[in-house]
Amino acid sequence: MRDDPPEPDLGAIGLRHLRRAIDLSREKMLAGEGGPFGAVVARGDEVLAEGWNQVTGTHDPTAHAEIVALRGAAARLQDFSLAGCVLYASCEPCPMCLAAAYWARVDRIIFAASRADAAAGGFDDAYLHEELARPPAQRRLPVRQALHDEAAAVFADWLAKPDRVAY
Amino acid sequence: MRDDPPEPDLGAIGLRHLRRAIDLSREKMLAGEGGPFGAVVARGDEVLAEGWNQVTGTHDPTAHAEIVALRGAAARLQDFSLAGCVLYASCEPCPMCLAAAYWARVDRIIFAASRADAAAGGFDDAYLHEELARPPAQRRLPVRQALHDEAAAVFADWLAKPDRVAY
Repeated sequence: MRDDPPEPDLGAIGLRHLRRAIDLSREKMLAGEGGPFGAVVARGDEVLAEGWNQVTGTHDPTAHAEIVALRGAAARLQDFSLAGCVLYASCEPCPMCLAAAYWARVDRIIFAASRADAAAGGFDDAYLHEELARPPAQRRLPVRQALHDEAAAVFADWLAKPDRVAY
Repeated sequence: MRDDPPEPDLGAIGLRHLRRAIDLSREKMLAGEGGPFGAVVARGDEVLAEGWNQVTGTHDPTAHAEIVALRGAAARLQDFSLAGCVLYASCEPCPMCLAAAYWARVDRIIFAASRADAAAGGFDDAYLHEELARPPAQRRLPVRQALHDEAAAVFADWLAKPDRVAY
C-alpha cells in the first residue's frame, strides 16, 4: 500500500502530527528505548499524547508506540474513550494496536511505513495480521477452551449489575 | 466453540488457574473496577501475575484483563518474553489481547467463556474479530497512509544500529 494521492488531503496539521510520530520513531530507537516506532494521539491541532516503542527498554511486550500514546491520551483526558481523536503512527499498527484503537474509539488512523517495512526490519507485524485473519483452529498459537458454563454465568451477573459502566 | 472433550486433559493445575481467572472476573467486576474479565499468567504451578479489566476504573481503554496480566508477568520477570508461560483468561481474548499474547510469546492460551458470551454482555469482541479478519480497505475504522518513504527510512537506521535488541 502506498500513498494515493501523494499527500494533499491530509492537511498541514495532519502532516505535522505524522512527522512527529516518525521523528519519535527514530529518536527513541536511537536512544535505545525499543523498536523504531512512534505515535501521536491528537485532537485537531492539539497533541494529547506521544508514544514510542518501549518493549525492550521497559520489559513490557505491550509497550508499542500506539498503545503508549493511547494510554497517555486517555490518562490525560481521564476518559477511556478517545472519540474525536486521531491516532498517528510511524508504521501501520499491528493487530494489537489496531484493536486498541477500536477500543479507544478514535475517529481514524493515519500511518506512514507499512507492515512490509516492519517485516523487513525483523518485526512480526505482517505475520500477526495473517494469523489474526485465520480461523482460530488454524492459528499457530495453541488456544483451547474449558469451563465455559462457569465463566458464561459471570456475564449474567454483569447484566444484572444496576450500576455497570459500559465501554 | 465448546469444551471438547469435557475437561480431562487440562489438568488440576490448569483448572485451578482458569478458575482463578473466572473468580477474578466476577470479584473485580462486582467491585466496580471494570468489565467482567479476569486473567492469570502462570508458569506451571506458579502464578506470575493476575489481571482483571480496569478500563472504566482507570480510564485506560487498553486495560483488559489479559493485557494487565501480561504486563504484570513481564514486569515480575523483567523480561518482555513470557516464553514458557500460559495465559488463562475467563473469556476468549479479543484481537488486542490475542495479538499481545503472540508478542509476549506465551506457549498457549486457555479461555472459558466465548466471544459470543461477551457479545451478549454488550462487548465488541466478536465485532472486532470480524473487523480484523477483513482486508484493511473493508474495515469500518478509517485508516490511511502517507509519508511512506520518510518512515521507511527509519527501518534502515534500525538495521544499521549495531546494539539493537530484537523482540
